Order: sequence, then structure tokens, then C-alpha cells
Amino acid sequence: MPIQIIPLKGMPIIEPGDDLVALTLDSLESMGLSPEDKDVYVYSHVIVSRSEGKLVDLNDVEPSRTAINFGEFTGKDPKIVEVVLRESRAIRRMAPGVIIAETKHGFVCANAGVDKSNVPGETVVAPLPDDPDMSAATIRRGIKDRSGFDVGVIVCDTHGRAHRDGEINVTIGASGFEVIKDRRGEKDLFGYELKVKRTAIADELASAAELVIGQSDEAIPAALIRGYDIEFSEESAANQLIRPRDKDLFI
Amino acid sequence: MPIQIIPLKGMPIIEPGDDLVALTLDSLESMGLSPEDKDVYVYSHVIVSRSEGKLVDLNDVEPSRTAINFGEFTGKDPKIVEVVLRESRAIRRMAPGVIIAETKHGFVCANAGVDKSNVPGETVVAPLPDDPDMSAATIRRGIKDRSGFDVGVIVCDTHGRAHRDGEINVTIGASGFEVIKDRRGEKDLFGYELKVKRTAIADELASAAELVIGQSDEAIPAALIRGYDIEFSEESAANQLIRPRDKDLFI
Repeated sequence: MPIQIIPLKGMPIIEPGDDLVALTLDSLESMGLSPEDKDVYVYSHVIVSRSEGKLVDLNDVEPSRTAINFGEFTGKDPKIVEVVLRESRAIRRMAPGVIIAETKHGFVCANAGVDKSNVPGETVVAPLPDDPDMSAATIRRGIKDRSGFDVGVIVCDTHGRAHRDGEINVTIGASGFEVIKDRRGEKDLFGYELKVKRTAIADELASAAELVIGQSDEAIPAALIRGYDIEFSEESAANQLIRPRDKDLFI
Repeated sequence: MPIQIIPLKGMPIIEPGDDLVALTLDSLESMGLSPEDKDVYVYSHVIVSRSEGKLVDLNDVEPSRTAINFGEFTGKDPKIVEVVLRESRAIRRMAPGVIIAETKHGFVCANAGVDKSNVPGETVVAPLPDDPDMSAATIRRGIKDRSGFDVGVIVCDTHGRAHRDGEINVTIGASGFEVIKDRRGEKDLFGYELKVKRTAIADELASAAELVIGQSDEAIPAALIRGYDIEFSEESAANQLIRPRDKDLFI
């Protein structure tokens, strides 16, 4: 059976308080689909932040002296820098045009994941959800309660990365399944030894989802991946994907 | 239309000289499929190296003094270290158990991508193909010649990465399509501004493919991704995915 990556069509502009579970089930129904066990639902973080009201109106932001300094150095709007700093626990690198931050959750990414979420006329930015693992868990429970099916949920963001050009979609919140598949000791039936030892399945699912998210003429903020055999887990979370700095030989 | 990730079933253990194009078309036929325009075929680098005879028998390897030294420090077989060094243009980091190398192509990865390709009883390792972009181009032309269809081809490898735990599949060879999708200036129909500016589509396709490659009981060394709208390009290549060290703010 092929794995399918299905764009969730028909989602409206998400506003604070919107029910992403209901909108997901509505979208499925409009496509003649219903949830199945082991479905993986992948949501762009911006719609999760918006639904949770995690929005900042730049008109309300008073930049600190630090934000003004950094804004001058980087060429960025000091109000945006102020929001970035509020979302960061550390700055990793700064250069003109670039702030690579470590978010409060521990993710290393440009601008601490603060996205302009500028529906026209808005001056609003959407930082990452406060607890994207919790956001994912809440959506997962909602789908379970309303449909009866056990699914996996991912909240995703696009990150630049070391060594390789371009951005890819990664998982910043996850619930319901093992985010890393430990394959140590496995061999495939050819006898090729598995070099891959610990596959970051959640990130591969997030990247797969971006092949439909925001790629078409129609705006697609979420995707369903069907046919991948997730390993259910109650404990797994995206924070398990963070490599501690002192164990990071790739930097 | 959903995107489909289809495992290429029925591939034998690949030996030097094997015709990956013929084996691909045979696999498709066995599943009742035939190529279509814009198909993307993703091959694990180990089968490409094997088909090209890029194999090293460790019994034939005489480790240098350097390889012996590094072997003692890292705890690795000095013969494997010797092969890693032959494939590397630089070493980025070394620690017990770990050599992070910069391959001759410029990819930064563990062990310069040298895989044990140990069909039982063999002492053979498979380094990366000498020119994975050329390997991909050759397969692409073969599929075009024999089927008439214009497809994209990826040669993939699994890499650990900075900041994030676990490995993901990435593209080390590509042919026929833009590996980076430049979306600067685009807006989606919601009006959300696209934060993602340059999406490394080839890497997202490679990661999607690994959801079926080597994941099932049956050994799957390659995948077909159908339904993604690649942008054809004759010039694009995986080496465009290499971020030059002096422009890398993520390290």
C-alpha cells in the first residue's frame, strides 16, 4: 500500500478560538474521507498559534534598548526583534539580516520561529505555540474523542539547517507516536546492515507533509499522512528531537 | 490528488553492473504500474554504489599511519577509517565513536557516507558514488529512453544533523528538477506571508521516500513519489544543496 500525503482542503483563515479538530474533520468530510487509526495529522505552527490566540500585535510592542540595538545591527524591525527576544532563551548567531535563536523550547532556528502572520491589514505576528507538544496532544485527544480513532499529530515549522542550503519542514510538537524510530540491530532482508540507527520519523513525516502544505494555488495549512505505520506512544514528544548542545558534533 | 509514496518492491540484491533502470521498470510492472511524467524515483545510495561497482573489500585495504591513529582514538576499525579518509576532503569533528567528515562532494556527514554494505559473508563497504548527480542523471536518461517519460531522480543518504537528534534522509544526487523551490515573494491565498523562502524540496522528497525505504519487513531500497509537481530543470543538482561553510550561520 502506498503512503498517501493528503492536503486538508477548505480550511478557513484561522482565528483565535477556532476549533482545529472540528475544522480537520470538516475538511476530511468535504473530501469524502474520515479518520483512520494511525493517520498522522500535520499542522503548520502558524494556524496552531492563531487558534490558541498566541498572537502579538506589533502596535502593542515596545522594543527594549537591546531590541533596538540588535535591530540596528541586523536591519530588522526592532519590534519584531523584541518579540524574537521574548521567545528566545539564547541567541546562537547574529549577522546582518539573520538572528539564529534558541527558542524557549530549545529549537534552534531563525527568528525563534516568529512568523509574520499577516493576513492583509494585520500587524500581527505569530510566535510558536507556548507548548507545541501540548498543542499536538490536545488536537490528538480531540480527534480521538470525536472520531474514536487513534492518530498521531504533528505541529511543524520550517527550519534552515547547518551544512545544507534551503529550508525543510520539521516537527516542533508531536503527540501519540514515537518521534524517533530506533532501528539499532535491525537488518533488512538483503542483509544490508542498517546504517541508519535512529531515524527521526517525525521530521520525515513533517517534510513529507510540506510537499502539499502551501504548495498549491489553494492555501493548504495542514496535511494528512495515511498509510505509515506509526508506533503508538503516550510519552513521545517533539522535545525528544532536540540534540543537546554539549552532544552536538555537527556544529 | 494525494501524493503517493510507493515502495519499489521486488528489487534483488544489487551487484556491480546491475541495471537499475531495468530493475525499476520491472518493479513497477510487477505492481501493475508504469512511469508517468513528473514521477520522482528515489534510490538509496548503497544500491547505486553497488550497481556502479563502487565497493571496497576491507581485505584489500592497508590502513595508513593516520588511519591507525584515528582508529585508536575513535575506536573504529582502521581499515574502515582508511576508506573514510579516502572519501573525505576534510574532517570536521572527531570523538570516540564518531568521525564527522566533509566528503569529496562537500557533504558533511558521519563517516563520509561510507556504509557497510555487508551482504552476509562479505567484507565489503560501499562508499558514496563518485558523482551522485551523474548517477542520478544516468538513471533519469535511462528511464526517459526506455519509457518516454520525463522524471526526476534522487540518490539519497541518511544524515545526522546539527541541533536535532536522529537521522533523516537527504538528497546527495539529483537530476531533472529544481532541488530548491524559491518561493520568495509568494503569498498563500489566506494572505499568510510565506516565511519559507527557499524550500529544499529534494530533501523533503528524500525524507518522504524513507517512510517506505527499509521500513517494512520486505527490504525496500528505492521508492517512487507520484503526484508532486516537480519543476523540470536540466541544470539542477544536489550539489546546489550544499551550504558553503563561510555562509553557514547554523554551525
